[in-house]
Amino acid sequence: MNRIGISIKPNDARACALLCELQGWLIERQCTVYVDHKLESCMGCPSGCERLPVSEMAEKVELMIVLGGDGTLLHAARDFIGSDTPILGINLGRLGFLTDTPVGNMFNVVENILAGNLKTKRHFSLDAEVWRGEERLAGGCAMNDVVLERRGKMIGFEMYIHDRFVFKMRGDGLILATPAGSTAYALSAGGPILHPAVDAISVVPVCPHTLSNRPVVIPADEQIELRLVESSEGGALLNLDGIELLQLEQGDRVVVRKNGSISLVYLPDRHYYEVLRTKLKWAGQVEAT
Amino acid sequence: MNRIGISIKPNDARACALLCELQGWLIERQCTVYVDHKLESCMGCPSGCERLPVSEMAEKVELMIVLGGDGTLLHAARDFIGSDTPILGINLGRLGFLTDTPVGNMFNVVENILAGNLKTKRHFSLDAEVWRGEERLAGGCAMNDVVLERRGKMIGFEMYIHDRFVFKMRGDGLILATPAGSTAYALSAGGPILHPAVDAISVVPVCPHTLSNRPVVIPADEQIELRLVESSEGGALLNLDGIELLQLEQGDRVVVRKNGSISLVYLPDRHYYEVLRTKLKWAGQVEAT
Amino acid sequence: MNRIGISIKPNDARACALLCELQGWLIERQCTVYVDHKLESCMGCPSGCERLPVSEMAEKVELMIVLGGDGTLLHAARDFIGSDTPILGINLGRLGFLTDTPVGNMFNVVENILAGNLKTKRHFSLDAEVWRGEERLAGGCAMNDVVLERRGKMIGFEMYIHDRFVFKMRGDGLILATPAGSTAYALSAGGPILHPAVDAISVVPVCPHTLSNRPVVIPADEQIELRLVESSEGGALLNLDGIELLQLEQGDRVVVRKNGSISLVYLPDRHYYEVLRTKLKWAGQVEAT
Amino acid sequence: MNRIGISIKPNDARACALLCELQGWLIERQCTVYVDHKLESCMGCPSGCERLPVSEMAEKVELMIVLGGDGTLLHAARDFIGSDTPILGINLGRLGFLTDTPVGNMFNVVENILAGNLKTKRHFSLDAEVWRGEERLAGGCAMNDVVLERRGKMIGFEMYIHDRFVFKMRGDGLILATPAGSTAYALSAGGPILHPAVDAISVVPVCPHTLSNRPVVIPADEQIELRLVESSEGGALLNLDGIELLQLEQGDRVVVRKNGSISLVYLPDRHYYEVLRTKLKWAGQVEAT
Repeated sequence: MNRIGISIKPNDARACALLCELQGWLIERQCTVYVDHKLESCMGCPSGCERLPVSEMAEKVELMIVLGGDGTLLHAARDFIGSDTPILGINLGRLGFLTDTPVGNMFNVVENILAGNLKTKRHFSLDAEVWRGEERLAGGCAMNDVVLERRGKMIGFEMYIHDRFVFKMRGDGLILATPAGSTAYALSAGGPILHPAVDAISVVPVCPHTLSNRPVVIPADEQIELRLVESSEGGALLNLDGIELLQLEQGDRVVVRKNGSISLVYLPDRHYYEVLRTKLKWAGQVEAT
Repeated sequence: MNRIGISIKPNDARACALLCELQGWLIERQCTVYVDHKLESCMGCPSGCERLPVSEMAEKVELMIVLGGDGTLLHAARDFIGSDTPILGINLGRLGFLTDTPVGNMFNVVENILAGNLKTKRHFSLDAEVWRGEERLAGGCAMNDVVLERRGKMIGFEMYIHDRFVFKMRGDGLILATPAGSTAYALSAGGPILHPAVDAISVVPVCPHTLSNRPVVIPADEQIELRLVESSEGGALLNLDGIELLQLEQGDRVVVRKNGSISLVYLPDRHYYEVLRTKLKWAGQVEAT
Repeated sequence: MNRIGISIKPNDARACALLCELQGWLIERQCTVYVDHKLESCMGCPSGCERLPVSEMAEKVELMIVLGGDGTLLHAARDFIGSDTPILGINLGRLGFLTDTPVGNMFNVVENILAGNLKTKRHFSLDAEVWRGEERLAGGCAMNDVVLERRGKMIGFEMYIHDRFVFKMRGDGLILATPAGSTAYALSAGGPILHPAVDAISVVPVCPHTLSNRPVVIPADEQIELRLVESSEGGALLNLDGIELLQLEQGDRVVVRKNGSISLVYLPDRHYYEVLRTKLKWAGQVEAT
Repeated sequence: MNRIGISIKPNDARACALLCELQGWLIERQCTVYVDHKLESCMGCPSGCERLPVSEMAEKVELMIVLGGDGTLLHAARDFIGSDTPILGINLGRLGFLTDTPVGNMFNVVENILAGNLKTKRHFSLDAEVWRGEERLAGGCAMNDVVLERRGKMIGFEMYIHDRFVFKMRGDGLILATPAGSTAYALSAGGPILHPAVDAISVVPVCPHTLSNRPVVIPADEQIELRLVESSEGGALLNLDGIELLQLEQGDRVVVRKNGSISLVYLPDRHYYEVLRTKLKWAGQVEAT
């Protein structure tokens, strides 16, 4: 394993400095290093690195390293959907669920990986397509969540699974989350935590205008369709991993399906539930002071 | 298919009358009918039925019919765990998630089944064992849920998965629910709805004495252990499908694993989400009056 | 009581027709009728009505009638804050918490009121001011709720009460609701229901990026300040009763205080909790079908 | 101020040692000290203290000191309902919402109080009476909460306010909490936090067997009645501040009213919201590690 791709959080001095350090370190170890071609601001780094769009790295590299937060990793990961190339996230962000490795352990962990000691887990993604009548307006994929949300006033929409009506809801929106995404926005909206190995999608209403809605967890291979049946001037938005895909009008349909997966490096001594406890302060005890 | 077992809700005049009617109807159709041997109060029924413990029926019958509510079905189903014999629940109870067939459709549905038109879905069960030191105190299984709960004051317990610590909680208790059980007590305690085809267990805290606990959905094949680390005089209870298995003392351990499944008849024209909407009033709209 | 003001839902044929009918009916009864001067589309009505801005009606009329939904009433009510003039809401909308009187009862109820049979309850309002440094950017008032919300990505803000730090939150936003507003957006976001006679403000986080936030109910006379400490390009919005007041930038401060109240007519035979049960389907039973 | 009463957590060596130390310290300062007469296990303390039932202290002492957790304070406080005597809670327990003063500050705080520097806030209590037909079975009062709960299977009950039907619920039970109690069991069951100065009662369902129930906050002077309309063999329990008052049968009625208040010493430099943040980890931020 000696062809390594690197992508970093854009416009971040710390990430840029780490990139330079890591490049040098890898080149010393006879690795071929590819760096995301958009990182023009990082110019002081050692020569010997090839600039390449991340989308072309998936075929070339044997290990992909991402320096940044979960957002950076989610962005880079889309080009690796369906690929077996392991992705290692070094956490420079706030929470770091996917970028699980602390900066302080970076060289240690990469050394181990180069030596072949490597554990990965797969995370599946979601594919979303927007249809207006017979026309496919846009499409994209998400590692964490596909979110339909109001842009302005309350929206109304219907959910179908395999063409059967599931429910109609009025409110702020709806989150369709993968297990990885279940600890992101879906958790804020009151959804359950899904262990990464559960092959399911979490359907979480956002501020539903009824007392009786409740999150539902459905098999990952169900095809979901959302129909925007009610919206005011503002319309609605479709967001993939927090990035706006496009603005929807009344009548538009969103079709969501399980898509390919990525291969994420994880630390064998880091237990999933320990991450939940440490990062989310999940199930924390109340205490005397 | 002509060997039919029947079990009914005990001490229920309506169930008893229906049993008699159904027996006669089945005997006319050349079926051999076995009736739960405990139903001594139902004596006016046609002769030609054999009394048999439900536990012996699993090997003999080709179809098991339960007249009652979900509680009656849960009780009878335990003897069919691991068996392929289809179970049909006729709903005489309040809600009837598992006993999905309305009484009015009974003959119609049974006629269809005898004619070979039959759809079933499998529901897995949970197995629970209680250990005090090296001694196995008791064991049993549940189709809906295994519930550890206080009996008196608040209890404290730890949860482990495959011997790794997950969390410690103080509060009223914890629910481990199958997908079938996710719409029962787990839903009342704030848990998500799990579609029956999701191969997972829902872990739902009951009145946790912390702000930060939240339901978690884990793969069904995880082995769970609960350790009662704190309890006052009252101790704690372990309930399987709402039936008390035994009283626990501080230090006792409960080991829960996925167990075999049963085969439940369902109506092909009855969609899961429609049942949610109709029976739970899930996602109901608020309306002008 | 014979000086009557009327305001209606704009651009609504049904409201317009009702207005004409009601005007005629009131004029027959020797009432002086004032109609919202903006209602230019309603031209076929009987002569003898004076057009007047709602803001001038508060001083002139002895009864204000609003034909529309809660939104229409909230809009008209702002001009009556601090006034004792009773306001009667005739429900043409979806839910109608404030516009409690069904259309079918309109003449009946108005007749009763003209005869002096009238019960009112007071609803207090909130006053919000936005400050950027030393400059007061905008101000306004709300009968239901003052809502700070993201416009784009997650926002971070701090809440202070009487200059003491209460909490910092990152997430979608925060709702400050009056008891009347507690059954509107605050309820969708998971807040409690506040009986109209409770003199308190409900503080409800919207999708907080933490597990441990929870609604808090504070005395109505507490002065609240929100400081927007973190926002991306989109910035944040301040909405009063669902109407955007202005866009906020990082560093902006929102000061919210209890303001004057309005006097709302209610039907003596209509109990508050009955309205909750009927309109929100609150505490509805699950049932067999 | 020199007549001081002391009550401590029973059977607790640490509380007993502190009692001895505090007694000596107070006697040195010419105080007359009264000690709860039930504390027979604390025998090594300095002479000069009078043993007295707590119920008789309310009339004699000018300051009541409680060494223990919230449970100890709740117990002692009942004898001070309606009295102006300030009560100081020294926290030896786990959480200590009412016993707000840390042990390390004890002498400091008491010295300040003896010097006349004293801030108190009033906490109202609830009075509960149980009726079976025309017979009053029992009565008692609670500083935190009155809880109706199942003892065995699910119960069904109706709630009335001033004789008007509010709702019927089936489930585990119902909590009626004062603002002080809103951060105790009511919070675990999903209820909102009520600031101590809000004059209201929080009505919080426990595991309701419906999707549509939700906590409601009602004016403190509403008279509440609960009617147990459905219960199996186990019946139901009525608990006051977590202590069982009695077992209820189907048909029993519980009448709950606002009762007198106690006067609790608080630390002027300790803000209510700071206590929420510190003790409950309320609104805690999630963080990188």
